[in-house]
Amino acid sequence: MSVHLVGAGPGDPGLLTRRGAELLELADVVIHDRLVDPRVLALVNPRAELVDVGKRPGATPSSAQADLHELLVTYGLRGGVVVRLQGGDPLLFGRGGEELDALFAAGIEAEVVPGVSSALGVPASLGMPLTHRGLASAVTIVSGHDVDAGSVDWSKLSDDHVTLVVLMGVAQRRAIRLALVGAGRSPVTPCAVIERGTTPSQRIVHTTLGALDRVDVDPPAVLVIGEVARARGGIGATRPLTTRPVAAAI
Amino acid sequence: MSVHLVGAGPGDPGLLTRRGAELLELADVVIHDRLVDPRVLALVNPRAELVDVGKRPGATPSSAQADLHELLVTYGLRGGVVVRLQGGDPLLFGRGGEELDALFAAGIEAEVVPGVSSALGVPASLGMPLTHRGLASAVTIVSGHDVDAGSVDWSKLSDDHVTLVVLMGVAQRRAIRLALVGAGRSPVTPCAVIERGTTPSQRIVHTTLGALDRVDVDPPAVLVIGEVARARGGIGATRPLTTRPVAAAI
Repeated sequence: MSVHLVGAGPGDPGLLTRRGAELLELADVVIHDRLVDPRVLALVNPRAELVDVGKRPGATPSSAQADLHELLVTYGLRGGVVVRLQGGDPLLFGRGGEELDALFAAGIEAEVVPGVSSALGVPASLGMPLTHRGLASAVTIVSGHDVDAGSVDWSKLSDDHVTLVVLMGVAQRRAIRLALVGAGRSPVTPCAVIERGTTPSQRIVHTTLGALDRVDVDPPAVLVIGEVARARGGIGATRPLTTRPVAAAI
Repeated sequence: MSVHLVGAGPGDPGLLTRRGAELLELADVVIHDRLVDPRVLALVNPRAELVDVGKRPGATPSSAQADLHELLVTYGLRGGVVVRLQGGDPLLFGRGGEELDALFAAGIEAEVVPGVSSALGVPASLGMPLTHRGLASAVTIVSGHDVDAGSVDWSKLSDDHVTLVVLMGVAQRRAIRLALVGAGRSPVTPCAVIERGTTPSQRIVHTTLGALDRVDVDPPAVLVIGEVARARGGIGATRPLTTRPVAAAI
């Protein structure tokens, strides 16, 4: 009995891993949430049962997570090839650690297949290097949900040489701006907001930290804060990267 | 004329992306460094020219990078499908941003195919979640090369709720320990050093920040510093994750 936790990557089905694709071909059951790109779901073999774990009306985040654990354990005990598929990487802000705990507690083995995280893969696909000599030497990835929770000390996220990537931060833009400017980060710090990165409806908005909550953007989006956010298609380039059609042969 | 910058992932060829694999099948030339796993290089079609850009004797990092740019531009101008393949992700500590600049300056277009970064993918493949409710809400990725360079303020990397992942840090373990303990991070903070992650010779050493430079480890390795580094196969689990044979069909 085993369950495979597979990262689907940021959206473009070309960014799914080979091992992830192999498991979607072999799967008897694929348990996925609504953030997985439909082009990745299309790679699941037609014999497999697809289970959408979208929240039930009235479910809280905790009860939804408990329901998911029950589902994983039920299918895991039943046997066959069970894949838990989620966007990005399963163990970065994915609560995959809690899913592993639930599986192990039930005596079910697990394999984790890492995925390309949106945090790194979306900027990279645009030619936006998160580290770049002279501009940024490190990167911090944080969830916008935490700006209010107080679990992270945002005053320590104020080093100009550390690029900040915020996932799930669109709704929290005002709080993010206040926390970072309050911690000493300059309001003219470049920011990029990338909506639906690596999908056909991708949209990039360049702004500054001071204006972050005045731009019109929608989730899901990746926020990049720091000097590298100016870049698109290389730091020195002013024109966009070649964007290839997603289905292109080359 | 175009060049494709492809991330090879951490080692296991199953963690190469589908788009990366497609380009290795179509490539006329693959320009790679010595950190790319031989099992990934084995996926290159046999008609392609393989160019190893290992440093020439006596080359400095800057002259080696300049040589590489010249090589990329020469092949890029010649035409055909030119792939620049590097371990992990091409734009995270990979100097890929500088390579893009060199290509654009020569009028050559580029595509970036993100890869699974060792920083995230190696811990994930072990079931070690870098963020986990109650333990860590964010992750910072930094290069060990920077602990001496002074480009990053390590005193800001002392938040116990932020997992720290250090790449290229084995040789700098003493300086890393001194910087972090000096900044207030406890010497009993759990650490994991993962040598050659996702390869058949992978080895994991669990230690503490205070003892980090007393354990015997060799590069290349990923250092994980923070409460989550205790975990292997889920936070609550005491036994290792199922490790699958790399060539397994399932």
